[in-house]
Amino acid sequence: MAHRILLTECPDSQGLIAQITNICYKHQLNIIRNTEYVDPGTGQFYMRTELEGIFNDKTLLHDLDRALPKGSRRSLLNRNAKRVVILVTKEAHCLGDILMKVYDGSLTLDIAAIVGNYPALAALAERFAIPYHFIPHQGLSRVEHEQALQRVIAPYQPEYVILAKFMRILTADFVAAYRNRIINIHHSFLPAFIGANPYQQAFERGVKIIGATAHFVNEQLDEGPIIQQKVAAIDHSYSAADMEKAGRDVEKAALSDALQFITEDRVFVHGNKTVIL
Amino acid sequence: MAHRILLTECPDSQGLIAQITNICYKHQLNIIRNTEYVDPGTGQFYMRTELEGIFNDKTLLHDLDRALPKGSRRSLLNRNAKRVVILVTKEAHCLGDILMKVYDGSLTLDIAAIVGNYPALAALAERFAIPYHFIPHQGLSRVEHEQALQRVIAPYQPEYVILAKFMRILTADFVAAYRNRIINIHHSFLPAFIGANPYQQAFERGVKIIGATAHFVNEQLDEGPIIQQKVAAIDHSYSAADMEKAGRDVEKAALSDALQFITEDRVFVHGNKTVIL
Amino acid sequence: MAHRILLTECPDSQGLIAQITNICYKHQLNIIRNTEYVDPGTGQFYMRTELEGIFNDKTLLHDLDRALPKGSRRSLLNRNAKRVVILVTKEAHCLGDILMKVYDGSLTLDIAAIVGNYPALAALAERFAIPYHFIPHQGLSRVEHEQALQRVIAPYQPEYVILAKFMRILTADFVAAYRNRIINIHHSFLPAFIGANPYQQAFERGVKIIGATAHFVNEQLDEGPIIQQKVAAIDHSYSAADMEKAGRDVEKAALSDALQFITEDRVFVHGNKTVIL
Amino acid sequence: MAHRILLTECPDSQGLIAQITNICYKHQLNIIRNTEYVDPGTGQFYMRTELEGIFNDKTLLHDLDRALPKGSRRSLLNRNAKRVVILVTKEAHCLGDILMKVYDGSLTLDIAAIVGNYPALAALAERFAIPYHFIPHQGLSRVEHEQALQRVIAPYQPEYVILAKFMRILTADFVAAYRNRIINIHHSFLPAFIGANPYQQAFERGVKIIGATAHFVNEQLDEGPIIQQKVAAIDHSYSAADMEKAGRDVEKAALSDALQFITEDRVFVHGNKTVIL
Repeated sequence: MAHRILLTECPDSQGLIAQITNICYKHQLNIIRNTEYVDPGTGQFYMRTELEGIFNDKTLLHDLDRALPKGSRRSLLNRNAKRVVILVTKEAHCLGDILMKVYDGSLTLDIAAIVGNYPALAALAERFAIPYHFIPHQGLSRVEHEQALQRVIAPYQPEYVILAKFMRILTADFVAAYRNRIINIHHSFLPAFIGANPYQQAFERGVKIIGATAHFVNEQLDEGPIIQQKVAAIDHSYSAADMEKAGRDVEKAALSDALQFITEDRVFVHGNKTVIL
Repeated sequence: MAHRILLTECPDSQGLIAQITNICYKHQLNIIRNTEYVDPGTGQFYMRTELEGIFNDKTLLHDLDRALPKGSRRSLLNRNAKRVVILVTKEAHCLGDILMKVYDGSLTLDIAAIVGNYPALAALAERFAIPYHFIPHQGLSRVEHEQALQRVIAPYQPEYVILAKFMRILTADFVAAYRNRIINIHHSFLPAFIGANPYQQAFERGVKIIGATAHFVNEQLDEGPIIQQKVAAIDHSYSAADMEKAGRDVEKAALSDALQFITEDRVFVHGNKTVIL
Repeated sequence: MAHRILLTECPDSQGLIAQITNICYKHQLNIIRNTEYVDPGTGQFYMRTELEGIFNDKTLLHDLDRALPKGSRRSLLNRNAKRVVILVTKEAHCLGDILMKVYDGSLTLDIAAIVGNYPALAALAERFAIPYHFIPHQGLSRVEHEQALQRVIAPYQPEYVILAKFMRILTADFVAAYRNRIINIHHSFLPAFIGANPYQQAFERGVKIIGATAHFVNEQLDEGPIIQQKVAAIDHSYSAADMEKAGRDVEKAALSDALQFITEDRVFVHGNKTVIL
Repeated sequence: MAHRILLTECPDSQGLIAQITNICYKHQLNIIRNTEYVDPGTGQFYMRTELEGIFNDKTLLHDLDRALPKGSRRSLLNRNAKRVVILVTKEAHCLGDILMKVYDGSLTLDIAAIVGNYPALAALAERFAIPYHFIPHQGLSRVEHEQALQRVIAPYQPEYVILAKFMRILTADFVAAYRNRIINIHHSFLPAFIGANPYQQAFERGVKIIGATAHFVNEQLDEGPIIQQKVAAIDHSYSAADMEKAGRDVEKAALSDALQFITEDRVFVHGNKTVIL
């Protein structure tokens, strides 16, 4: 017996749940869990169906395609670990958290490689026996650096690129190469404190809560679809550096949740928003 | 167009979602939201379906009854405000929170009456123009007092009885009269600090978090199915009285959530547990 | 035996805690709780001292003034309930929460009057026997309306003016009349979603957490010193209206905390920030 | 300039803060932060004073001893990393979290050694270049096993022994050897679910929140002074195994906070409670 996820996305119409679950039933597949959402603004229908049974992929997808309206997207996913490449700069905490969660079985990811624009985290990668590529940006234009990154990343054919505190802004070209497949952790409660040095900005504003945002990267800096946000209470005694330190746990938690959703095939992108089923 | 909730509960079998949603489709009902759960331990299937359309209740229920397996329960609920009677003792905060949320539209309940074993909250009830019945327990046996309560409550025919800090233990007979329809707010994070004076117990144990539990009342004191729990962080400087004061917000939040779930017909009872869809 | 709060604020220098607590000791006052903070950026010293004993205010303040450096501010406060005027528009939840907490003893405030630019909440004020002044803004310039507000508010001589969802922007003149004494509840996690319709903005951005901010009002709209912030998790299924409804509890909690800090004389204002001791 | 922590604990009497801070002032020490607490039940005074300056330890302590009442305890601590030995069984997450936080600088500890009753975590220890001692309990009595543990632990002279999911009950003798210096992470929100298999117990009870408790170990199983507690919301769909997985982050967070308090010398033990200043 296999365990698969069927994701369906299409314009809403009456009877969609009945049609899709009926096809699953005719294929003698057992529905473990079914979650759906219709966006009332756009009239878009989203459904995630966890199935168990013996799959005949070709006829199942064929039956679905005949039943679903024009403009539908459906995918039948197996439960293999997602293959990812992680980009980092110097900070260890987000990378370390991912590595340790994969190590202890809390997170199921196939980390193909780690790429850094500094050598700082090479030793950590080595401890977990994962290839580390040091691709310095010094002396290179942004485009040249990204081409160098791409040459290293592309052969791994990652399903997702994870920016685990990668402190470089990406060009639209790079983003386009991994559309809705680059996940960034931003160290603020977006859209507060867009741009550089959010903890310094938060300190100057005197906020009582700090946050972090895991989001897909799109062409607009810090404006991609938000996957998860987390916060922590602080007080007047926190310097910007204290906030940065307290923020580490928040950043790790938001990124870790986002990766967990991804590994469970729960995330749909919908304009500049996400639907998490 | 009407808006109704269909609740279904039965032993799991393949094709249930397809069958039920198909019947809805044939009745030209639109599914606004559908959530289901199969308990892997008991093999029990639960589904909540929000429907919109023109309902022919009789044929719809008939079609469902023909399709569903033996031992099924289904109900087709309209969205009327639930009729409730609230039992209180002396503390105002939970009652006040419910009254104010109903007043400002945050909570949709039809509060038929308030019944207290002290007169303390009569004035508050009067401010919101709700009948208050003062039924003292002094000089009465537990059974006599409950009979007096019942004589007052029964004519209101409440769908739910809410114990908003009603500080009396109920007999199995009283509980049986409103099976899975009495909701209590217990001032601890159950099952910690069962019994009397939970804040004093929490103080003596030196906990760093206090909690509250909204639950259905059953024959076992403090052991009924939990609907919602909430907590708040405290520290060494809290006396039992400080905890009690800090706990008010937690109690209000847990009870308010539970009532919200009830008003949305989201709660199934499942042995000594709840399934909230 | 009286119970008083001594608040001290001055440029930091060595020995301040020793000097102040020594003076208290010589006056045979018992220190119940002492909290202090030195801002490392500005070198400003803040201290809050809860004292118990028999107070000779004149000599105590005289002794402090001799000991403290130039530019010090100190105040010796009794524990009377603060006298406040509450400004509202149409939404009941924040006002209702304050009224109910004062009613049940959770919050100690002397609510002198409620002033609304709509008549919507007059009935609620009446239920709690508090004067309600309906001061419509229609047909008046902003300045004329504020003058009308002032004519009503001033005779009450409030220590604080509370904007409990008062949906009008105040002029610098009005703000100046109650410098650091006007407390507003803003329905977003400031500085995110400054300006109008923050829940609509939050909906469009697709955030996963909403928030509310209690702050002192200054001349810059939404930029006054933040006293407290609270948040709640939401998901893709929340419309702007759902967020607004979920936000009510968050708004109430942030405002209620801020008022609690104020009643305990714990808030210092420090540029555009607060220090909460 | 050195940075030290002065901890004082004694029966309360008037003028204690003045006396202690005065002595610091006479020694020309700058107070960075001072926090104190008087327990109203026991009349015990606790104070933590962060000092900066040039320390003459001998005369400072001598001056303090002359000033403080009988039964006082005071210690003047430097800011060296605490030397600890970590005991583990098979689960990696708590150990991994500590190792990674020490690695990335979030936590300042000197991990002298890791001791396990299984070999499972030897490889992880090796990755961080920390000695791992595998001390199997099979075939040994509890006392014999603890003697074997002691022979390995004692030479490291740890200030604290951390039980990072060490799944063995310790005898009173072992506990006595490290009085108030053994920190355990218990996988429930104590005092709920004392004893074995708390996640299974939580599952059976149908709770909506799970928790974890970091506490000092004393002679009574699961009854030592609580240092920190953390919780996470769950729902009906969580199996005991899902709770165990969700609980990992909660366990890590509670233990990590407790260790952070310890490294900052903020924890006083007070009967079966802690005071965290």
